[in-house]
Amino acid sequence: MTEAETALIAEAGRRLGPKSVITNPKEIEPWLTDWRGRMHGAAPAMLAPASTEEVVEIVRLAAEHRVPLVPQGGNTGMVAGSTPPPDGSAVLLSMRRMNKIRSLSADNRLAVAEAGVVLATLHDAAHEAGMRFPLTIGSRGSCTIGGLTSTNAGGTQVLKFGMMRSLIAGVEAVLPDGSVHSGLSGLKKDNRGYSLDQLLIGAEGTLGVITAVALRLVPAIATRAVAWTGVASPDKALELLRFLEARTSAVEGFELVPQDSLDLVLKHIPGTRPPLSGKHKWHALVEATTADPETEIAAELERLLAAALQQGIIEDAVIAASEAQAEAFWKLRDTISEAEREEGQTLAHDVSVAVADMPRFIAEASRAVEAAFPGVIASGFGHLGDGNIHFHVRAASHAAPDWYEREGAEITRFVDDVVTQMGGSISAEHGIGQLKLGEFERLAPPGRVHALRAIKQALDPLGIMNPGKLVP
Amino acid sequence: MTEAETALIAEAGRRLGPKSVITNPKEIEPWLTDWRGRMHGAAPAMLAPASTEEVVEIVRLAAEHRVPLVPQGGNTGMVAGSTPPPDGSAVLLSMRRMNKIRSLSADNRLAVAEAGVVLATLHDAAHEAGMRFPLTIGSRGSCTIGGLTSTNAGGTQVLKFGMMRSLIAGVEAVLPDGSVHSGLSGLKKDNRGYSLDQLLIGAEGTLGVITAVALRLVPAIATRAVAWTGVASPDKALELLRFLEARTSAVEGFELVPQDSLDLVLKHIPGTRPPLSGKHKWHALVEATTADPETEIAAELERLLAAALQQGIIEDAVIAASEAQAEAFWKLRDTISEAEREEGQTLAHDVSVAVADMPRFIAEASRAVEAAFPGVIASGFGHLGDGNIHFHVRAASHAAPDWYEREGAEITRFVDDVVTQMGGSISAEHGIGQLKLGEFERLAPPGRVHALRAIKQALDPLGIMNPGKLVP
Repeated sequence: MTEAETALIAEAGRRLGPKSVITNPKEIEPWLTDWRGRMHGAAPAMLAPASTEEVVEIVRLAAEHRVPLVPQGGNTGMVAGSTPPPDGSAVLLSMRRMNKIRSLSADNRLAVAEAGVVLATLHDAAHEAGMRFPLTIGSRGSCTIGGLTSTNAGGTQVLKFGMMRSLIAGVEAVLPDGSVHSGLSGLKKDNRGYSLDQLLIGAEGTLGVITAVALRLVPAIATRAVAWTGVASPDKALELLRFLEARTSAVEGFELVPQDSLDLVLKHIPGTRPPLSGKHKWHALVEATTADPETEIAAELERLLAAALQQGIIEDAVIAASEAQAEAFWKLRDTISEAEREEGQTLAHDVSVAVADMPRFIAEASRAVEAAFPGVIASGFGHLGDGNIHFHVRAASHAAPDWYEREGAEITRFVDDVVTQMGGSISAEHGIGQLKLGEFERLAPPGRVHALRAIKQALDPLGIMNPGKLVP
Repeated sequence: MTEAETALIAEAGRRLGPKSVITNPKEIEPWLTDWRGRMHGAAPAMLAPASTEEVVEIVRLAAEHRVPLVPQGGNTGMVAGSTPPPDGSAVLLSMRRMNKIRSLSADNRLAVAEAGVVLATLHDAAHEAGMRFPLTIGSRGSCTIGGLTSTNAGGTQVLKFGMMRSLIAGVEAVLPDGSVHSGLSGLKKDNRGYSLDQLLIGAEGTLGVITAVALRLVPAIATRAVAWTGVASPDKALELLRFLEARTSAVEGFELVPQDSLDLVLKHIPGTRPPLSGKHKWHALVEATTADPETEIAAELERLLAAALQQGIIEDAVIAASEAQAEAFWKLRDTISEAEREEGQTLAHDVSVAVADMPRFIAEASRAVEAAFPGVIASGFGHLGDGNIHFHVRAASHAAPDWYEREGAEITRFVDDVVTQMGGSISAEHGIGQLKLGEFERLAPPGRVHALRAIKQALDPLGIMNPGKLVP
């Protein structure tokens, strides 16, 4: 522990009390490794403020002692953005004690949640008020509003409601100089200079500590309909999506699954079975919802899919007859990664291209990767409607156990090059954090890197906000 | 003309040719005064690039010679944000020659328009493709996409579609260092660092020159229904809005009009007549639209308003029986400012508070202003659904002709104080520009001003991008 850290921790203890300053290594330990278990950090203390005022105190102390802070919510990020550096040169700032929902109004369609509120908790609170916060991801039981905001999280409902950015009405944050940016007024129109809210969203804690967020709510779902369809190609899946979108605004989920991925799920995940009797090269899972109890959403989806079948857009379709069957359809999609891990080593890429380019990307990138790295199997699945593909590369059956370590980086560079050539993004949902920092620097235009560095330096000249993340 | 300006203009002429460099004072003259005729500037030249490459050249020359640029679109801004300084120390940068719609796809629901495309031109192009760009304002025949983006424009359709910010899928801009930020790929998901797109939106040209914008389209309107309702109070109007929003997503416009404003319109605007036979203290104009030709939107709105009448939310209502009548209803709303000007001197404020606070704001602010400045008449009208009120203060009938000049600033400070105390914004749609710079500095939290200055200094260290605007 450096002298500066010792001084900061002692002073924080005096000002905030023992509950807000954790130094017991056993209590800190679980928060030092990232979600995917790839990065391990160290920290002499974990500060756990209970209020915005306490965060202000901590940020001022950090500035005074020049000790960097690493803000952390549920620690469920995919790019090690909230893992402290391994040399112990920074202090963890856990936001989990700031877990109050300050307000929730169905009338105003707004909730104000503190950074440490767990997503599932917000879902429940909204539901009790007859409303819904329409963003969800796999880690909803652990991830927090602050982390979701700092990473501009995505998920399966982006098609209809957008990413976290479009669901945020305002942000409260403590800036690196200790001032509080207060954007929670819920103004729908406010043109007073650069949007600090927008700058803080997706900044991964490098420009300030988000303490609370005003979130847009929508009416609760009355009913949903989930369909599984068989299609000949990603092109046909895209045609189906366009066909549906032109006729209804009810489509909320549209997931593309190759037969190959479905086969792995059926092989490895107990209790799964194919929704359709025939074989299809590709599948699209469609979810439609309505907030109006009088809309017969299943009948509407059935009618539309029948028309799509007649027009040769799809080869077959089935609508879930029950909520249990709907869950079973979603399980086929949601367990693909798990099934792949059972099968062997897999290298995952969270990338995006323009929606219209998706079919071409899947075909060309798969072909190129399989040609360049003989034996590997490449496949794309995921959010077709968002242009966001989880592009996975599986090791050849004869691959060595250290294939991932030995070849992973090279394959990732190859995939990232293909994505960049198509004008896509090497990080669709997951952010940059530590894990994608090198690739980001390698592939970003120099002007962009220069601008990001200039903004970081301008707002955090002492470098106390999550250094070593996001900004190359 | 300074030596630096002479050198820049000569060099620009050599590199870009005479079409792009205008020095004839007669051609420059019309662009030196702001839309409202309140600020008059001077400029030794107007540069008019025809491509992004030419803008790059110009920005590099401006940096080299340290001559500031004042970007300008249709010159329809309300806060003199594109008026050059009166000392002639900056050069006008007219974006109007960059007027190509680079692409427009109904399938992708995207258009890419250059900065100089006039809004009405984009409306027409979208309409031809069966689509719609759902933002419109009074100056649609002159205002440009670049200006709308740089000011994060609002308008009458914000209730359903949001402000310009939420309709933008990406921005292309030339940054102050001459690099091109290219955000036009149309990616729906892209988490690669701070969003420069979001930073440039609403930056009033102080961080770079926007050259093109990717814009979201929605399906064209099939039919619309416009209703005029009489209500007892702004509270009741808000209740009506909530009542409608809970039952339909078709409401696109919701405008509040006091009887007093309606009386002025009927008095001064030829050919207008009251939609309802009785007298009502307040009125709400409601517009509902549908993209589905099979939806009987007028019948739906009529059914909902009948229910609202029965529940005592409204006092009376009438649905426009024809498109001509719908236009006549809108004219009653749109000519309020004109009627007020006919009546006498009027001081306009474009302010916002939280939607739920609107009725209280209108009542309290009107009372407070009329008490503090005896004889004046205060009234609020406008976009109730957005919390955006055009709060106008009319001179007393006995007021001196120079009332506006003598008392305007003091009344505005009074109104801005009331707005700020209620957590509102002194600029809802119009921006800061030059006209609101003093009030912004007076009322903004110091931390916010500091952050804005730091960002400006970081990205435009030479101060060549529209100096003296937006950033106090």
